[in-house]
Amino acid sequence: MIIVLSAEASKQDADEILAKIENAGLKPLYMPGTERTVLGALGDERILQGLNITAHPMVEDVKPILSNYKLVSRELYPADSVVSIGNVPFGGQHFSIIGGPCAVETLDSFRASATAAVKGGAVALRGGAFKPRTSPYSFQGGGLDALKVMQQVSKELGVPAVTEVMDAADIDIIVQHVDALQIGARNMQNFNLLKAVGRTMTPVILKRGIAATIEETLLAAEYVVDSGNPNVILCERGIRTFETATRNTLDLNAVAFMKKRSHLPVIVDPSHGTGIRDLVGPLTKAAVAVGADGVIVEVHHEPKEALSDGKQSLYPEQFSQLMLELEPFIKAAGRQVTQLKAA
Amino acid sequence: MIIVLSAEASKQDADEILAKIENAGLKPLYMPGTERTVLGALGDERILQGLNITAHPMVEDVKPILSNYKLVSRELYPADSVVSIGNVPFGGQHFSIIGGPCAVETLDSFRASATAAVKGGAVALRGGAFKPRTSPYSFQGGGLDALKVMQQVSKELGVPAVTEVMDAADIDIIVQHVDALQIGARNMQNFNLLKAVGRTMTPVILKRGIAATIEETLLAAEYVVDSGNPNVILCERGIRTFETATRNTLDLNAVAFMKKRSHLPVIVDPSHGTGIRDLVGPLTKAAVAVGADGVIVEVHHEPKEALSDGKQSLYPEQFSQLMLELEPFIKAAGRQVTQLKAA
Amino acid sequence: MIIVLSAEASKQDADEILAKIENAGLKPLYMPGTERTVLGALGDERILQGLNITAHPMVEDVKPILSNYKLVSRELYPADSVVSIGNVPFGGQHFSIIGGPCAVETLDSFRASATAAVKGGAVALRGGAFKPRTSPYSFQGGGLDALKVMQQVSKELGVPAVTEVMDAADIDIIVQHVDALQIGARNMQNFNLLKAVGRTMTPVILKRGIAATIEETLLAAEYVVDSGNPNVILCERGIRTFETATRNTLDLNAVAFMKKRSHLPVIVDPSHGTGIRDLVGPLTKAAVAVGADGVIVEVHHEPKEALSDGKQSLYPEQFSQLMLELEPFIKAAGRQVTQLKAA
Amino acid sequence: MIIVLSAEASKQDADEILAKIENAGLKPLYMPGTERTVLGALGDERILQGLNITAHPMVEDVKPILSNYKLVSRELYPADSVVSIGNVPFGGQHFSIIGGPCAVETLDSFRASATAAVKGGAVALRGGAFKPRTSPYSFQGGGLDALKVMQQVSKELGVPAVTEVMDAADIDIIVQHVDALQIGARNMQNFNLLKAVGRTMTPVILKRGIAATIEETLLAAEYVVDSGNPNVILCERGIRTFETATRNTLDLNAVAFMKKRSHLPVIVDPSHGTGIRDLVGPLTKAAVAVGADGVIVEVHHEPKEALSDGKQSLYPEQFSQLMLELEPFIKAAGRQVTQLKAA
Repeated sequence: MIIVLSAEASKQDADEILAKIENAGLKPLYMPGTERTVLGALGDERILQGLNITAHPMVEDVKPILSNYKLVSRELYPADSVVSIGNVPFGGQHFSIIGGPCAVETLDSFRASATAAVKGGAVALRGGAFKPRTSPYSFQGGGLDALKVMQQVSKELGVPAVTEVMDAADIDIIVQHVDALQIGARNMQNFNLLKAVGRTMTPVILKRGIAATIEETLLAAEYVVDSGNPNVILCERGIRTFETATRNTLDLNAVAFMKKRSHLPVIVDPSHGTGIRDLVGPLTKAAVAVGADGVIVEVHHEPKEALSDGKQSLYPEQFSQLMLELEPFIKAAGRQVTQLKAA
Repeated sequence: MIIVLSAEASKQDADEILAKIENAGLKPLYMPGTERTVLGALGDERILQGLNITAHPMVEDVKPILSNYKLVSRELYPADSVVSIGNVPFGGQHFSIIGGPCAVETLDSFRASATAAVKGGAVALRGGAFKPRTSPYSFQGGGLDALKVMQQVSKELGVPAVTEVMDAADIDIIVQHVDALQIGARNMQNFNLLKAVGRTMTPVILKRGIAATIEETLLAAEYVVDSGNPNVILCERGIRTFETATRNTLDLNAVAFMKKRSHLPVIVDPSHGTGIRDLVGPLTKAAVAVGADGVIVEVHHEPKEALSDGKQSLYPEQFSQLMLELEPFIKAAGRQVTQLKAA
Repeated sequence: MIIVLSAEASKQDADEILAKIENAGLKPLYMPGTERTVLGALGDERILQGLNITAHPMVEDVKPILSNYKLVSRELYPADSVVSIGNVPFGGQHFSIIGGPCAVETLDSFRASATAAVKGGAVALRGGAFKPRTSPYSFQGGGLDALKVMQQVSKELGVPAVTEVMDAADIDIIVQHVDALQIGARNMQNFNLLKAVGRTMTPVILKRGIAATIEETLLAAEYVVDSGNPNVILCERGIRTFETATRNTLDLNAVAFMKKRSHLPVIVDPSHGTGIRDLVGPLTKAAVAVGADGVIVEVHHEPKEALSDGKQSLYPEQFSQLMLELEPFIKAAGRQVTQLKAA
Repeated sequence: MIIVLSAEASKQDADEILAKIENAGLKPLYMPGTERTVLGALGDERILQGLNITAHPMVEDVKPILSNYKLVSRELYPADSVVSIGNVPFGGQHFSIIGGPCAVETLDSFRASATAAVKGGAVALRGGAFKPRTSPYSFQGGGLDALKVMQQVSKELGVPAVTEVMDAADIDIIVQHVDALQIGARNMQNFNLLKAVGRTMTPVILKRGIAATIEETLLAAEYVVDSGNPNVILCERGIRTFETATRNTLDLNAVAFMKKRSHLPVIVDPSHGTGIRDLVGPLTKAAVAVGADGVIVEVHHEPKEALSDGKQSLYPEQFSQLMLELEPFIKAAGRQVTQLKAA
């Protein structure tokens, strides 16, 4: 339920109602605005009706939240949320680019790829330390060593870094080394992991599952926010369909839909979304045009040598060229591209 | 097979080789270029090898066409094909917009919707006269009366029109009234219909089937071209996936992929591709950015009253607004929007 | 609407009400039963309400038909329909087996495959004369020659035959040679073709489209029945999903669901449904167990030499062995396998 | 690689070769047979070739394992594996039935449902204590209390029990209360969880993910077995497709395919696979016929009151009736139904 207070309502009025909500076992939300204060009450709506809140003289309106997700819904917060990874903002008028290799390999190789990404225009780094791999016999990631490499290069280049977390037990060590946690597509409905990252305040990039509906994706985000962490960035990375010419089917409908229904920032991963180097450029432009708040792109200094996902990684010069071509689209979209701040 | 002749080869050399190809029961193709003449030979490649064409002194190179589709492949024709509907070009540097209602209802209603579309920026009209409907009890289209309405309004406004053909028997009457034939998604593999439109020279908008792979779509186009009609415009209109929040999943990967592999123009239908009015705008912009050669958008003067697809039709003012917002994206894509020519 | 007459109602009462329905522009249906006569009225339900039929003294009950399909629904006809191809019944307690090669090749080869099928237990023959092929360069079927071959072998062996129709223009010639028309998966929503076969009384095997929902499949059947031909046999032949290990995903849920909701017989095509010879046996058994009324299986006397679908065709001895193994399952399902009648 | 030793090879020969394999950093496998001993070597095949094992006088044959999964492949172990939950065997000639409610609610309700299941023919109990739920606001399961309820009822009725594990941290407490661990569809590629259950010897029911290919499913099983636990039972529970009439599309092709390629037992969940009570019966029969080694069925003593999945739970009398009807199918399949052993 959304409870709109009248313009004359005082903080004390709000506190009074919030206490009533909390006492009834519901989750109270306090959202002061410039003109009106809005309160929220999440939980069993029948209980709320019993509270008879409409009768309070300072309550102007009580409206149900129609969607199944509440905290991430625009019904509750109409304005865009801006979530920052380090000093890089996602959401609102910003358009921010994350770049880097699929997996962190050696220090030299990560530094080379990261430097190429930053030179091209990336303002945050990606790289996998713990890799979810379909086969137990594939490279499983560099683990702690890879985290250390990321931290070092991130510091050298002055840009934040993000890496995937596969296990709640790894959260502590990961947040000591990088600036944001990624939940991969395979773990989008690993609810215990969602709750665990929800108990930190570290920004979370939540990738849509390969067969997750938009509603399920928003409900997965709701798990994180409901656990206490509002810093969620949604990521469309392609869904699994019958089409086999491309690795996945990038669902840009979902980006537009999620932007309408949720206040959370939404970014796009055109690398996994296509799986084909030549398609990354066109789909990155499309992501800008459809209203995404950023992209996360695989760049590798030597794609042919990459331990994973080489086929979809851009060469440094391709990435730089793409970033140049992207500018007029970002401008057309009324966005401002986030740029590296001078140290 | 692609046979590249040497720069000194004469027309007589070409004819000699083409005759050899034809005599062997293969399909010969003659493609004179500014620097070199290129010949094609389609059919059983083992027969071709028996011809020993490489031995001809004027043959510089013989290369296989690797894809299953041949005539629509960029391997055969590397440059963009431009296909015109009336005087409206699709392909190359052009970006052209088709607008109009889902179904042609009355003269007054179609005129109102078409006028709104043209006023907003459409340079060709769409409208269904023969409607493929899931249920036999739904409105099946206005038939010949609707064709007459289209022709009258098309003349009044000075713009060409396109309508769907569901039956080879209707082709003659349709081409007397409108300027292009649409093959709907449900008929994309109605091979006899493909062959029948292939025996005309009327431009064909070929919509991708809801579960057709990219390869199957290009092979469907190959049927039309192989039957003699090179004027095919491919249309991505969304595929069927597990996602139910949107009517279809618009597959912009497929647009980029088809543009890489085929010389045919590719347009996008964001109305069927999303099924939701509010998403048509963002996905139209994304279509421009991904490299489409045009869009086909449902515009209705009174969507609430539409006999079909009202939920996804734009209001006139929404369409005009979208066209304004589209301009910088079209410019960013290095395209020129096709404009109505003064009479 | 379903109108249940009281036990005392005379034929004259029924005629009176049917006339009223027809005069109002609705489609009247007369379904005399052993205890009660039931009438149907199809069309705009608001018109029907205006007729005030409940007021008629001989009307006991008026119930809406809730599903979108009407004539094929069990709401209208609760009992199983039995549809016969030649003298082979499908539906009710019968279980009938159709066998034969994918395409009709030569007389000798079709005779060999057909003989093997009949020897194994098939009581009807399948074989393609007009083949829908993804590529224009693939074998398109033997046409009229193939029809003649089918007719000859069908007579020699004393079993009926079925072949696919791709074009309304071919219906006449096909029904002169074989006993049933197949609508292929690609044409399931070729509505003009559905109406055309609906204007014959020849039995129709309607294959589900690769991306057709159950509801769309039943509505496609409704097109045929609504056009006048009640002799429709539904066929589940696998749908297109993300799984690539098998050619299609055979949806046996759909068989059980359609049997619950429709009175039409439902058969299964385990050959296209799996695309893998070794899986045809287990899925044929599963089709029996789930409640199908028959199967249509590809059998070829020399699968390695088959012009199409060799990978999924059974060898004669495999087919015979399968039929033996099938018997206890057919018995367990309470069905009687249809056997060849001595001439 | 599979290394077949000659009939005269001694245990010492085998040990010698196994040591060589291990020293090279590969995983050695020792599989003594009645006629021949077979060794396995898993890992980088190029290393193995360097070992020149074929040169050993006691090595008769060295064959590569072609599939990506090794330990779960029939290439490695051609015979059926039998995995027992408590004293209930799955695999080989056995057909075993697991029944129970979706979630464990109260002691009384679980006892009632479990009793009904056992009375009908179930020889193992299912019930969720930790529930993966799409929304954070849905019932999340009874946790430890539910485990205690399961243990008590399991002892009372003398049948083993299985419950889902969502978090590696819960494994210890779960295995103290029940006899098998279920990995749910959403966690099929939660690789850390797979490794964790792989470090126990408790039987694991591994459910296929809703968008997991057959190959990915077998590779998920490979994770468990490679971690040390060979006791894996695969479970087909329906995949996500475009079809919305049923909750999922039960993929019985996959059951037949996995039985061909893997030695692991495969069971079917017709409750989640259909989501509709009326379809559970037909699909259970189909599961038997297609070659499954068992089923896991939702039975609830009062489905209308169930906190989750009531729509797909069988009433006690429906379950009993189904078990009776199942018998002839189990016999037709050449299987023996596992029965409750007298205490």
